[in-house]
Amino acid sequence: MSILTLTTDFGTEDGNVGVMKGVILGIAPEVRIVDLSHQIAPQNIRQAAFVLARQIFYFPPETVHVVVVDPGVGTNRRPIAARVGNQLLVGPDNGVFTPLVLRAEQVGWPVEVVHTNRPEYWREPVSNVFHGRDIFSPVGAHLARGTRLEEIGEQIDDPVRIEWPSPVWDGDAIRGEVTHIDHFGNLFTNITAEDLAGREVRSVQLGEIELQGMAQTFGDRQPGEVIALFSSTDEVLIAQVNGSAARQTGARVGDSIAVFTRPLAA
Amino acid sequence: MSILTLTTDFGTEDGNVGVMKGVILGIAPEVRIVDLSHQIAPQNIRQAAFVLARQIFYFPPETVHVVVVDPGVGTNRRPIAARVGNQLLVGPDNGVFTPLVLRAEQVGWPVEVVHTNRPEYWREPVSNVFHGRDIFSPVGAHLARGTRLEEIGEQIDDPVRIEWPSPVWDGDAIRGEVTHIDHFGNLFTNITAEDLAGREVRSVQLGEIELQGMAQTFGDRQPGEVIALFSSTDEVLIAQVNGSAARQTGARVGDSIAVFTRPLAA
Amino acid sequence: MSILTLTTDFGTEDGNVGVMKGVILGIAPEVRIVDLSHQIAPQNIRQAAFVLARQIFYFPPETVHVVVVDPGVGTNRRPIAARVGNQLLVGPDNGVFTPLVLRAEQVGWPVEVVHTNRPEYWREPVSNVFHGRDIFSPVGAHLARGTRLEEIGEQIDDPVRIEWPSPVWDGDAIRGEVTHIDHFGNLFTNITAEDLAGREVRSVQLGEIELQGMAQTFGDRQPGEVIALFSSTDEVLIAQVNGSAARQTGARVGDSIAVFTRPLAA
Repeated sequence: MSILTLTTDFGTEDGNVGVMKGVILGIAPEVRIVDLSHQIAPQNIRQAAFVLARQIFYFPPETVHVVVVDPGVGTNRRPIAARVGNQLLVGPDNGVFTPLVLRAEQVGWPVEVVHTNRPEYWREPVSNVFHGRDIFSPVGAHLARGTRLEEIGEQIDDPVRIEWPSPVWDGDAIRGEVTHIDHFGNLFTNITAEDLAGREVRSVQLGEIELQGMAQTFGDRQPGEVIALFSSTDEVLIAQVNGSAARQTGARVGDSIAVFTRPLAA
Repeated sequence: MSILTLTTDFGTEDGNVGVMKGVILGIAPEVRIVDLSHQIAPQNIRQAAFVLARQIFYFPPETVHVVVVDPGVGTNRRPIAARVGNQLLVGPDNGVFTPLVLRAEQVGWPVEVVHTNRPEYWREPVSNVFHGRDIFSPVGAHLARGTRLEEIGEQIDDPVRIEWPSPVWDGDAIRGEVTHIDHFGNLFTNITAEDLAGREVRSVQLGEIELQGMAQTFGDRQPGEVIALFSSTDEVLIAQVNGSAARQTGARVGDSIAVFTRPLAA
Repeated sequence: MSILTLTTDFGTEDGNVGVMKGVILGIAPEVRIVDLSHQIAPQNIRQAAFVLARQIFYFPPETVHVVVVDPGVGTNRRPIAARVGNQLLVGPDNGVFTPLVLRAEQVGWPVEVVHTNRPEYWREPVSNVFHGRDIFSPVGAHLARGTRLEEIGEQIDDPVRIEWPSPVWDGDAIRGEVTHIDHFGNLFTNITAEDLAGREVRSVQLGEIELQGMAQTFGDRQPGEVIALFSSTDEVLIAQVNGSAARQTGARVGDSIAVFTRPLAA
């Protein structure tokens, strides 16, 4: 029994997510469907890319992740499917898988991408405005049933990539940016524990705010205090204990952040 | 293994949807439950009717759709179950199934309605204020397990109907109204591709806005442009590319719309 | 096949609920997962306690309820699991199970609590900030697969309790408070039908509003009228027919309420 996740910008009020599940269960009645997020901001490919890249490797091998954040639906942008490491992906070829592919290249995981251009795996007729229902869901369901990626479409080697900034070292400081603001108002950044390996954090700077060192967890500090700590997925996170760092600091996605370090004492 | 969908005005914060699922799984442990929408506006029977009518025929045959938008709960309004075409319905007899019944009459699908008045299919004791938990969910679960409609209750031929306006031709123009505003701010109308068969659209008028022709899809036009196109369920849709037509135009459900046409050139 | 419910303050936008489901299905592929609520207000232990206490006894026996409202994550607060009557619980030892334990003591149900301190039932490495993913979900999944509570951890008899006020009789009046405001703006109170057994309600007082008697259901009164009636879980509820009592009255959680009674005529 395999698992299929859904990530969309549809919200949950109109039944469009439900109808994708109906189509999926019609093809793969045993698949377990998990909602990853349906609150991606409309057309926000970067936000969907971030959520996927953070979360999918906690799923069992061969999980299929269907993504529908698709401003180019019905144009000549390709529908694609991919294998990245032990996870399978289905969605529009608009760069939404960029950080996953970058990660795979960095750590040496295999990546395979196909153009899902075979109508026998689609639902017909295909709407010009809802490939989530008519292409991505049926293709995902077929993958979840065990159809191999190579059968689903022709291999391609030029999937679209979007710019995905890496942090940059500048002496003892590493400079990056805010990449995501979560439900609690926590600020995620593109600086990771891995980036800081072998170094100690002296301070973290966000605009005019300077935070001394890193906290271990929220409850180590007083309610209301703004702290830096590692997120559950090992990014440097700016949080307000029992509050919203986003509201407190006014920070937004794309704002600059710097982490000042020194070598770990031997 | 059958599928059961849920459509309510409950929101998802209080656990009332969860508890319905607990009751359903207690009766039908194998059923697959799909949320269609829990964001119907409180007591908005028309909105629930619209969502159901748009979406349910994409589900596999014998799917059971449980609807709980029920301002008359605990009064003498009847609880009913129905078969419309190959789909099964359970909910209050308040007109929420009207467009489904109209559609069935139009295309010749069979319709059967029963008054679900047999307490052996309910959860006891029945609360005066939550038939979703105590009547509709258990009845839906029994249907999903294979209990036949005729066993669930006595056949009736007078289910409540609400007014459900059809568009009207006026020379070469067809006049209808805005029926739904979706998560993206797209405006759905009650004018369909079927209504326009054999004709070409010259323009679409909404208040003081006049749109020339129909677009094929969002990405064919420039971001910010307001366009008319066919929705994924073949209604005339007014949308703003990468934006919200509702916000841009100020239109609301019930506003008038006109589509000006000419015969398709032979 | 067992059922596992999730109650968190995570919202549904970031994929953190989805990732918990991925972890759970990796351990217990057959378990049926039900969302109870992910809209608990951030860090609001009392709200989570209320939703759980209201809803869990409608689930089939041996259902596992995983709760992640956890401001003390990563500190020395214990992770616990418990059996209360025929339901199983997993979550932080911060008092979130208090009303369930009080209820069990009142009616004589067995209660067993263990400190889930055995890493063989966890996902490693354990994040300092997301025990929902790394401790509570895996422990819940093991319980759902049939691992016995005693294997999961060491029995304890001092779980944290939070203050949980009971209503108080004052002559013929019983005085309590507003405990929850639901999606519709209905005001729940801590006065129950059980408290009022053998007595007739003359009036209900909330601030300067006095309501005569109890309604049977919403549809018995006129739209806009503020009424008192019993909720689907038998609390005294203040509601506005087809409206929001919260908006209409301005009442908030913690506000005082009094129910004036007289003995039922023989």
